Amino acid sequence: MAWTVLAEPGDGVAGALIAELGAVAALRLAVDDDPARGPAPAGGERHRGAVAEGLARWRLRADARSVRDAVRAATQVRARLIVPGDPEWPAQVDDLGAHAQLLLWVRGDVTALSSSPKVAIVGARAASAYGEHVAGEFSGELAATGVTVVSGGAYGIDGAAHRAALAVEGRTIAFLAGGVDRPYPQGHRDLLQRISGTGAVVSEVPCGTAPTKWRFLARNRLIAALSDATVVIEAGWRSGSLNTAGHAASLGRPLGAVPGPVTSAASAGCHRLLREYDARCVTTSGEVRELWGADHVDETESRAHPDETRVLDAMSPRAPLAPEELARRSGLSPARTSAVLGYLELGGAVRRSDRGWLRVPGGTQ
Amino acid sequence: MAWTVLAEPGDGVAGALIAELGAVAALRLAVDDDPARGPAPAGGERHRGAVAEGLARWRLRADARSVRDAVRAATQVRARLIVPGDPEWPAQVDDLGAHAQLLLWVRGDVTALSSSPKVAIVGARAASAYGEHVAGEFSGELAATGVTVVSGGAYGIDGAAHRAALAVEGRTIAFLAGGVDRPYPQGHRDLLQRISGTGAVVSEVPCGTAPTKWRFLARNRLIAALSDATVVIEAGWRSGSLNTAGHAASLGRPLGAVPGPVTSAASAGCHRLLREYDARCVTTSGEVRELWGADHVDETESRAHPDETRVLDAMSPRAPLAPEELARRSGLSPARTSAVLGYLELGGAVRRSDRGWLRVPGGTQ
Repeated sequence: MAWTVLAEPGDGVAGALIAELGAVAALRLAVDDDPARGPAPAGGERHRGAVAEGLARWRLRADARSVRDAVRAATQVRARLIVPGDPEWPAQVDDLGAHAQLLLWVRGDVTALSSSPKVAIVGARAASAYGEHVAGEFSGELAATGVTVVSGGAYGIDGAAHRAALAVEGRTIAFLAGGVDRPYPQGHRDLLQRISGTGAVVSEVPCGTAPTKWRFLARNRLIAALSDATVVIEAGWRSGSLNTAGHAASLGRPLGAVPGPVTSAASAGCHRLLREYDARCVTTSGEVRELWGADHVDETESRAHPDETRVLDAMSPRAPLAPEELARRSGLSPARTSAVLGYLELGGAVRRSDRGWLRVPGGTQ
Repeated sequence: MAWTVLAEPGDGVAGALIAELGAVAALRLAVDDDPARGPAPAGGERHRGAVAEGLARWRLRADARSVRDAVRAATQVRARLIVPGDPEWPAQVDDLGAHAQLLLWVRGDVTALSSSPKVAIVGARAASAYGEHVAGEFSGELAATGVTVVSGGAYGIDGAAHRAALAVEGRTIAFLAGGVDRPYPQGHRDLLQRISGTGAVVSEVPCGTAPTKWRFLARNRLIAALSDATVVIEAGWRSGSLNTAGHAASLGRPLGAVPGPVTSAASAGCHRLLREYDARCVTTSGEVRELWGADHVDETESRAHPDETRVLDAMSPRAPLAPEELARRSGLSPARTSAVLGYLELGGAVRRSDRGWLRVPGGTQ
């Protein structure tokens, strides 16, 4: 916890030092007045030089009151702390190596972080109506069928993705660049509150920390690392979303980009991803789903009638849906949808609730 | 000439027989009452079977009057015939092998066929305003800088591409599925007339032949084979343009697709090309140009200041352009454009005409 106060996100020197000595011994070294008294870190001259530079920057922040303030602020907003080794720790982010975060502050449901699958839906703040529409469609359809939608809580695409997931009572995670006690942007205070009600608002920096440009860039690597796939809906030529996409690509995570009119500056970054990053062109939520492998599709299609698969694909284990809505999503007639639901119910694959139909997790057809 | 009356476009058996015996001996075999008297074609039983089937279909059309009518119609519209070996014969189409056309009927400038580079700009008849706009922009910018624009003369994207090339006094070729004496569609009679005035209207079928669905598909292979690259601007999910694109891909010709809104059915085929055919996403005429290699770009960029390259890229050796238009195309200020033009003129790379500035072919900077 103290380390997140001392070091900026993604500080590889801090990460390496903690991995080498453990957080406590590393901290002792960092806050000790005389570094010669601390344990001598292994490695050559260059390593020692990097540590010396680290010490110089960490000591400027070595202040017990800052740590106490961060803990107090976290307590006030009921943020939970999770660290590597906790059952809720999302193992995927360890792929970042020494640049991984040290811990995560979470408001809301910590289990959301280790839910699966998770897809990052990100994009421009200055989104077009087209972009927000597509973000809403994709996010709603994915969240309604059990996919956790990860985004950055920003205006534009991020907000549209979060809102659509909430609208279908799906699960969504907002990764903030500042502390989880500081809703940012301010205009999304209510949205972030709602997200923490059913999903999670997460940050690697301690409460009280302001979002800065660097922290936004660092935050983007976590969005990419945490998610099974990243989809960019709209992005300008130099959008921060391309940074998230670049992290996804370098981590070997599947990357999708939504095309748009070549006359729209808001799609220029997506087209750049298609041309330069070998991103996959995605035009439907089904194509997004294919990004992380067609496991779910294969599993059901091998056993079920295509219409059953289509209805099951449209259903969620948590968000009850009316038959009319299932017909709309599956593209089947209302009569056919009802018949298929009845058959699936007999087989235990779906169930009725007061508010609509639900998929039974692990249910057979 | 007689063979084009007897055989449908792309008749591989006719192609193989002509390659084996020569057109005259093959024709003698085809029109002879007793095939036993003709030269025995080489190859096994299967080959003989194919030839026997060919004879059965060719003889139904073996009628000297049909050939005379085709020649008379061609003479009336002043169509020229070119055959393999003629200096104007476009060697690229020989890549089609036995499925290559036997000859080409040309109205207009036969040298257009062997001009270089040539780009096919094709797409849906049921194009959107967006698609026609993009086709016009790309075609105009390419044609104004010496690229020959090849298309199919249809409504929608094809028409927009042809018109834009004519508007900048560039060169364009329309490939028809029927005879060159039969403007199709009728509503493009005037457009096709204008095309033959500076470029060429071309067909592999004799005059008097009606366009049929098969001939459209066969014609598409020629568009792809003739062009250094093919770009699909808009196409429905099952558009005929995907057929042209498939030919381009199987011939190893570069293939580009223009993205559009995922909500637009007119772009669904283009997105399919990006996803399934590994087409290159193209969003500007410059990116189209990259499809067939950056020869021109490399050549100038290695010697010229970037601004000079931008102005030269915007210029044509044949269509004079006003400085304002060059500024718009190059993205430089009018003042900077004038300065660059002056410098280029000193070096002999550009020249003034009464109607605007021209690039000097082969001119150094």
